[in-house]
Amino acid sequence: MNHVATKLKEFSRSMEDIRMSPIVTISEEARIRAADFERDGRKFIRFQRGEIDFATPRYITRALSEGLEKGLTKYPKSGGEDFFKEAVIGKLRRDHQVDDIGAANIVATYGGQEGLELSFKLFSRGAGFSPTWSCALENFVPHAQIDFLEVPLNPDFSVDYDRVEDAVRDREFFYLNNPQNPTGKIFTEDELIRIVEICTRHGVFIIADEAYEKIVYDGLEHYSLTKVRQDNIITIFTLSKTYAMTGWRLGYTVTRNEHIAGLLRLGNYTQTAGVTTFMQYAGAEALNNVEESKRAVDTMMAEFDLRRNALFHGIKDLPRVRLDKPQAAFYMFPNFSEIIPTSVTGDERRRYIYNLLLDNGIASVYGSCFGKHFDDNVRLSFSATPVPVIEEACNRLRGLFA
Amino acid sequence: MNHVATKLKEFSRSMEDIRMSPIVTISEEARIRAADFERDGRKFIRFQRGEIDFATPRYITRALSEGLEKGLTKYPKSGGEDFFKEAVIGKLRRDHQVDDIGAANIVATYGGQEGLELSFKLFSRGAGFSPTWSCALENFVPHAQIDFLEVPLNPDFSVDYDRVEDAVRDREFFYLNNPQNPTGKIFTEDELIRIVEICTRHGVFIIADEAYEKIVYDGLEHYSLTKVRQDNIITIFTLSKTYAMTGWRLGYTVTRNEHIAGLLRLGNYTQTAGVTTFMQYAGAEALNNVEESKRAVDTMMAEFDLRRNALFHGIKDLPRVRLDKPQAAFYMFPNFSEIIPTSVTGDERRRYIYNLLLDNGIASVYGSCFGKHFDDNVRLSFSATPVPVIEEACNRLRGLFA
Repeated sequence: MNHVATKLKEFSRSMEDIRMSPIVTISEEARIRAADFERDGRKFIRFQRGEIDFATPRYITRALSEGLEKGLTKYPKSGGEDFFKEAVIGKLRRDHQVDDIGAANIVATYGGQEGLELSFKLFSRGAGFSPTWSCALENFVPHAQIDFLEVPLNPDFSVDYDRVEDAVRDREFFYLNNPQNPTGKIFTEDELIRIVEICTRHGVFIIADEAYEKIVYDGLEHYSLTKVRQDNIITIFTLSKTYAMTGWRLGYTVTRNEHIAGLLRLGNYTQTAGVTTFMQYAGAEALNNVEESKRAVDTMMAEFDLRRNALFHGIKDLPRVRLDKPQAAFYMFPNFSEIIPTSVTGDERRRYIYNLLLDNGIASVYGSCFGKHFDDNVRLSFSATPVPVIEEACNRLRGLFA
Repeated sequence: MNHVATKLKEFSRSMEDIRMSPIVTISEEARIRAADFERDGRKFIRFQRGEIDFATPRYITRALSEGLEKGLTKYPKSGGEDFFKEAVIGKLRRDHQVDDIGAANIVATYGGQEGLELSFKLFSRGAGFSPTWSCALENFVPHAQIDFLEVPLNPDFSVDYDRVEDAVRDREFFYLNNPQNPTGKIFTEDELIRIVEICTRHGVFIIADEAYEKIVYDGLEHYSLTKVRQDNIITIFTLSKTYAMTGWRLGYTVTRNEHIAGLLRLGNYTQTAGVTTFMQYAGAEALNNVEESKRAVDTMMAEFDLRRNALFHGIKDLPRVRLDKPQAAFYMFPNFSEIIPTSVTGDERRRYIYNLLLDNGIASVYGSCFGKHFDDNVRLSFSATPVPVIEEACNRLRGLFA
């Protein structure tokens, strides 16, 4: 192979600045350590990824085959097929009592990810809570070359409204992930309305990421920002988590701002020429078949709730570990400030608990992956870990910290 | 709905500057005119789109269902699944006698489109032949905010190498679509090697778009730039055209430059989190099953060749219409310079033949959609038009021009 001395030595910042997610590095580290453990006949326990161990419900995979049978293999309609948008409109009406959204307000995307990525790309200055989903920080922000300000939640994950107001004063958008990764926090209607009011008063757009809308416990209800009838809000949904469809990459974005919807549609067309036609057919069935959908989600949520209880039960009694019970998603983000020696600082501190857990056969993600303000936390995901394995992990945690 | 007076009035240029393809507007115009024609009991003939009227071969749709059965519904591996990359490596070896490409040189993408879009995004100054695929000009160039120079082919679509050399002197990349849309030109090995030599001498990257690699007639062979073992070449492929999979959105990019492959992989991850897992499984089968693949392509090509002959036969005898027989793809790009009155200029000239055809129930695309230098041409696509319909179109053309 010949190396060519090209004039251009560095590519665009938009591409060069994207960072590999540290979770990928962590998963690689976990893979190596897992091999060591398993060689010794000991179980290695993975809490590092947001993957789901459920299969996509049969009624959805059946619909995919049906879409293929119908010959839905031609170029997608720009922005999304009519039947998919109709299904979204039905879902918004049923689940959020929203009846003023039409086809021109909806864009089909590859997962929630493409909706978020395209939405970030509209702007140059943003803010959002810390901790937050690592992909926003490592991928969307550098790719769109955004100047992004992290607004820390309080240690108990409550909102400091003065900080929000200070932050958005000179910002174009606020990124709001609800329910939230990595904290498992669900924002209350009051919290949301207050945040929206502050953003609106300062003429700021809101990018609402509602990927975990259905992963909510204790009979609580997710309050969707699609309920707020304003044109400074972009709400991003995905079928990934609700229907165990992470690998399908199917989602949609909703906004009352038709200019923005138009830009997202053109952006989606430019990037991918639209979302696979027969996948949209299956996605429509996922949303439309209320009975099967409820059954599938209920089954999954019952299991997630058992896991949540098992993991929380194991952590809450550990002395000096701070954790309130998360009410949504499938993450816990405990704080170990009182355990990490004050003499331990910098990168060593950031990886202290992570390394300790790893040495004991438990993979987690260190808090600094999710922003600047939570170095003493780690994220544990129970999306793919059965209860007996969680119990084994809790035994090990007790051995370490109790 | 409340309108919020936001501080930001215009979004990023990268999003605001994307243009709606004129082909969409044309298709809308065609839809309206078609209704008129059909009301009068006359057939309306569509030559405007690159859609294919074949169904995706059964062996590929069967493989998709199989992939689903295997539970391939989890998050895709970043850059592409191993089994998909293996299939690409096999295809490169078989079809192009290339044996030095490994997994690190391949990125799975949503169609060729995402590979192209991401590749353009690496750069800020480019050039390419005119006429060219409209999406490059309307979408990739403004989205990546590229200063793009069109290098006209000669009227007979041969290459003016001096113009190429002049153009690339201060450019970072050259976009080369081969076989070419809209001309149906297939570049010869000699032409390609000479273009590569010029680009390489000037330290310029080449983005080679080989979407139509298999849509080649007269026993000719497509020469893939993957054969040239240099790290200034990025080659983009798609399964869309070869396997009538336009709506699947499945493609891959190959480059010996591993840094670029890494950037494209992160870009793909950022935009979409990777290509749907079970689609990659079906894509691997499309490539791996040589026997079924050959049968499907041969069947489709036999029909395309009949259509090509029928349409070319109808056009070649029209006086004052200039057209050499296209040797690839499913487009013809005849020139009407001697027919359009010299007094007709500007936009009227650009739409002169297009309007004339439309008035006679034939939808085409006017030449200016494909760049600055071919206002007197129109593109006719025969990808979805059966022979009897083509013959009817030819009758009408004779009525107009003979």
